[in-house]
Amino acid sequence: MSNTFTTKNLDLDDPNHPKDLKAPYLKLYSLETPNGQKATIYLELLKLNYHLTRLDIRTNVQKEPWFIALNPNGRIPTLSDVDSNGNQTKISETGAILLYLGEKYDTERKYYYGIDDPLYWDQIQWLTFQIASHAPYHGQAHHFIKYAPEDIPYGKKRYLDETERVFGVYEIRLKENNGWLVGDHLNIADIAAFSWINIYNYIDIDINKWPSIKAWLEKIREIPGVQEGLNVKEHEFKH
Amino acid sequence: MSNTFTTKNLDLDDPNHPKDLKAPYLKLYSLETPNGQKATIYLELLKLNYHLTRLDIRTNVQKEPWFIALNPNGRIPTLSDVDSNGNQTKISETGAILLYLGEKYDTERKYYYGIDDPLYWDQIQWLTFQIASHAPYHGQAHHFIKYAPEDIPYGKKRYLDETERVFGVYEIRLKENNGWLVGDHLNIADIAAFSWINIYNYIDIDINKWPSIKAWLEKIREIPGVQEGLNVKEHEFKH
Repeated sequence: MSNTFTTKNLDLDDPNHPKDLKAPYLKLYSLETPNGQKATIYLELLKLNYHLTRLDIRTNVQKEPWFIALNPNGRIPTLSDVDSNGNQTKISETGAILLYLGEKYDTERKYYYGIDDPLYWDQIQWLTFQIASHAPYHGQAHHFIKYAPEDIPYGKKRYLDETERVFGVYEIRLKENNGWLVGDHLNIADIAAFSWINIYNYIDIDINKWPSIKAWLEKIREIPGVQEGLNVKEHEFKH
Repeated sequence: MSNTFTTKNLDLDDPNHPKDLKAPYLKLYSLETPNGQKATIYLELLKLNYHLTRLDIRTNVQKEPWFIALNPNGRIPTLSDVDSNGNQTKISETGAILLYLGEKYDTERKYYYGIDDPLYWDQIQWLTFQIASHAPYHGQAHHFIKYAPEDIPYGKKRYLDETERVFGVYEIRLKENNGWLVGDHLNIADIAAFSWINIYNYIDIDINKWPSIKAWLEKIREIPGVQEGLNVKEHEFKH
């Protein structure tokens, strides 16, 4: 992540950048991971046209100089928004991407509350809770339970316990707030939490322990656009 | 965290709430930890009057019902902002607290860029990077190196390596952006990163590996207000 706004379009250094992609456009560098799905679900819900570039992280392409110039942290998802003059805004970190898409493209404020809305701070609080206090620990549970080359019971238990504790916080919130994290319908904070909670069974969490989460999950899975966001393929650019 | 805005002032359920604390006021539930210091540094830089309640987490006070009502996640820092009518805004998560203080109280936009400023998205990106991709892993390094009841070399190495990798990302950014994470002077994103990087020696990180971080750290430590924010004591309320 250098400055988010540049007058040079760094997408052009991507060796696989499609030559027929003409400005203005949105381009998402991503994968079908929970963090990647936060971005694709919101893009699909907003019915935005965007070009998806899948990064094959097994080849460490995300550490190549052209991608590090887009995002020095070398992670997906990274969003590139190029205007008709070729000026580029590039945004990394899922929380930042959701807020950016909300502010710039969710013009009807369907899933995003603007800064003058009384619910804006609920949204910021639950979104930052998800990115800072949920996803990192849920991710570590995945690591120790599924990927670590050593069997480390302490690590498995530590992060599974913390993930389940966080599920307990969501359960209370969903029960108290009539089934949504923020306001009375799907919001970017729900999208962020959903993308991770949706794969609870990857580490054999028993979702029945949290009935409000279970109902919320089933409800969100049926919203048109959500399945498309979970199962994105390489996109044809539709502008 | 229930809704951030309520017409009932939940501070009154704190058994140690000072009876002479009259609305309007700011009250911060916190401790001298890196996350707590993010809030106190900014409050001190803004020269705001606030009441600080230290929570003795050894007694698990943060899990008592009155505090869970303020913040269901049971964590510090938690900020309470009570207006002259007794209406309360309560904000948890350090990223949310910094943004809230910036939007509401940094009226001269000294350390915060407003949503219409071209640097707003740099600020959001680097702040979310700090809270989601730095602090959690740095915290886990602390855990495995200093606190874990078992000696787990895998955990120590995993999180120390990740913390040092993140330091490398900051180093590139500070070098490229003339010594600040966002814009050309101290910003809430720098405050967030500083509060953690400042205690690099707690786990024997050699800061000399990152000369731009070292210079940035020394520069921030000398800014009036920063030391006060690092070393807060119980505050007398000054309104």
